[in-house]
Parts: sequence; structure tokens; C-alpha cells
Amino acid sequence: VVGWAKEFLPRGVRFVGSHPIAGSDRRGVQYARADLFDGASCVLTPASNLSGTPLPLGEGKSRLVGTRVRASWAAEYQAAVASVESFWQSLGMWTCRMTPARHDRCLAQISHLPHAAAVALMLQATPPARELAGTGFLDCTRIAGGDPELWRDIFLTNSAEIVRSIKSMTSQLNKLAGLIARGNSAGIVRLLAEAQKRRQELMDRHLKGRQVEG
Amino acid sequence: VVGWAKEFLPRGVRFVGSHPIAGSDRRGVQYARADLFDGASCVLTPASNLSGTPLPLGEGKSRLVGTRVRASWAAEYQAAVASVESFWQSLGMWTCRMTPARHDRCLAQISHLPHAAAVALMLQATPPARELAGTGFLDCTRIAGGDPELWRDIFLTNSAEIVRSIKSMTSQLNKLAGLIARGNSAGIVRLLAEAQKRRQELMDRHLKGRQVEG
Repeated sequence: VVGWAKEFLPRGVRFVGSHPIAGSDRRGVQYARADLFDGASCVLTPASNLSGTPLPLGEGKSRLVGTRVRASWAAEYQAAVASVESFWQSLGMWTCRMTPARHDRCLAQISHLPHAAAVALMLQATPPARELAGTGFLDCTRIAGGDPELWRDIFLTNSAEIVRSIKSMTSQLNKLAGLIARGNSAGIVRLLAEAQKRRQELMDRHLKGRQVEG
Repeated sequence: VVGWAKEFLPRGVRFVGSHPIAGSDRRGVQYARADLFDGASCVLTPASNLSGTPLPLGEGKSRLVGTRVRASWAAEYQAAVASVESFWQSLGMWTCRMTPARHDRCLAQISHLPHAAAVALMLQATPPARELAGTGFLDCTRIAGGDPELWRDIFLTNSAEIVRSIKSMTSQLNKLAGLIARGNSAGIVRLLAEAQKRRQELMDRHLKGRQVEG
């Protein structure tokens, strides 16, 4: 997205990539919620390399005025970042800055891979097992109900990071399968307890965020 | 469980394995819900081989009366199965009968594997990605918050089927990763659309079941 912004936006526009990590599977104004953004994260991906940013004046002119224009552009750009940051914070969000590359890696792990996993869960279940499936299975495959074309686009736009995170997930699954096959009771408990602990940390931070902001 | 019943229950007791596929992550009477079982499935695993079922009389006696006792036991056992079936149906459940082996395979696919997948999702996420995680990631790792000792026991009790279903899930994930890596847009859409369709079928059946019973 940051690449497209560099390519297509007119010169002089200050683009600050922002991604609010909030939403639900419902679409339409009837599902609007006043607290959707409360305590949720918003990632900003300001241009890290200002010399790569289009200058506010035409190329010929900018070459003439040189560093002075660049310095003023840098100050304006920082002001733009701060103003975008305040906007999201005024909605109750917690903001952080990172490079576009790091954003893509993180999003693969917390959003794109979970979608791939829900699809794989749905596809591995045989017909007799699907006959029995209850609300538990429906819950954990919920996101597999998402629009195939939309998700195809996401998968292809962030393909390298998604493939990397799929590999990392299958390696975790193989590790657990190995412990189960060898009957390594203590090893299984260690793995499950670590997952439980990390999830509890997320829950605690999420609840705390909501209290502070709400 | 059926094996333990055969080993430990006193002779003459008619044991009918039943597994209501319903529940939630909340424990305690304050989370009781009148509609918990409405339209959900309940699996019965009646003893398929009556000669393997403990006879109602002592072994010595049963050898004397022979087939007559076996026939009367078979009739009594079928009556017990029907009565257990009516009990679950009276709670609004949809019942089906299958062998214990098939039950274990199906449960691995719809309940035990989803737990393993939630644990793997939780463990693959790196600290910066966890910093950003929102309610979506919390939702799809919810079951990874379950009790490690309880789940260790489940994993070890049904180990062969769980290992088999983990393999089947990693092979689905690898297939998707291959399509993404090769940029096979049509193949990705086909896979995602199939998962979406199968999930919609489950949803439709689930909602219909609730309407009929509720």
C-alpha cells in the first residue's frame, strides 16, 4: 500500500499509512459500535526514508532549493504523522509506528495466518465429523466464511510473509504431534501452559487498555 | 471410555456411551443456559459386539443357559440404548449412533485438532505481532486458554487420531501455501470458496436444527 501511495499519489500529498486493528465479521451501518476502536491498536507506517518521499515542489525546482526544501518537507511530514496519530488516539486507540515491512510480517501472524488456519480446519473435517460439529467448531472456523476474492487478494499481496507464517505454524503443529506420538506428557503440558500464559497476557493487556481508554 | 466401562463396571450394568457435543468455555452454574443442548448433536456408542459385552449373570451360569440369556440381554441392551436416546432427544438434541473408533476420529477432527491449532497459532506469534493483536486474534485462540492438564489427558487418550488429524491439517496448510507461493489466484479462490461453502452448510444445518427443536 505504501508502495502504491508513492507511485500514484500526486506530489505534495503527505501520505501516512495507518491500519486500525479493529473490526468484526459484520458489515453495514446497522452493526456500527461506539466502542469498536476503544483500546485497540493502530499501526502507523510513516515513510522511514524521507529522501524516498516525493518532494512538495517539482523536481527541477527542488534541485535548485536543495536541502532547505527537504528540511521543511521533513518538518511538515512529521507534523502530518503527529496529526494522524492524534486522530486515532482521539478515538481511544493505542498507536505505534513501524516500518511497512514489519507491519506486513506482524499482520501475517495475527490476521492472515488465522484465516488460512480456519480454512484448513474446515477442509480437513470429513463428512461424518462435520455432521457432529457444534458451536465450538463453528466458532473456530468463523473467519473461513469470509469472502474468497477479498482473501485471495490479501494472500497474494502479502504472500511471502503469509507463506513464512504458515511454515511456522506447521512446525509448531508438528512439534506438538511429536510430543503426543511419543507420549511425552510433561512436554505437552509445557507447550500448552506456554500458549495459555501468552494468551492470558494478551487478555490482560486488552482488558487494561479498555479500562484506561473507556 | 468404552474400554474402561467394560473393564471396571460391575456385571449386569448396561453401559451406553454418550457424548453430547455442546458446551462453552465457561464453567459453573452461573453460566447455565436453558438452550445449551437445543439442536446440538449427541453421539451414542452402543456396544456393537454383544458377545463382547459383560453378561448379566456370572460366567459359570451364563455358560449353562447359553443363547437364551444372550438373547434376553441383547433385548435389554437395545431397550437401554433406546431409553438413553430418548433422554437426550427430550433435551432437544439430535442423536446418532456410531462405533467408539469412529467417534474418536470425528472428535479429533472437530474438537481436539482445533485446540491444537489454537495453541500453535498462539505460539507462532512473535512479541511485536502479539503487541498488535486485537479481538480477532483473541477470538481465534480462545480455546488455547484451556486447562493444560485436562488437554494433555485428552491428547494422550486419543493420540493416534489427533496425530492423524494434525497431519491432515498441515497438508491442507501446505497446499494453500503452495498456491500462494506460485501466485495461483484461481486455485486459492477455489480452496477458499470450498471452505466457505462447507461452513455455510454447517451453519444452515445448525440454524435449522435450532428452529425445529426450539
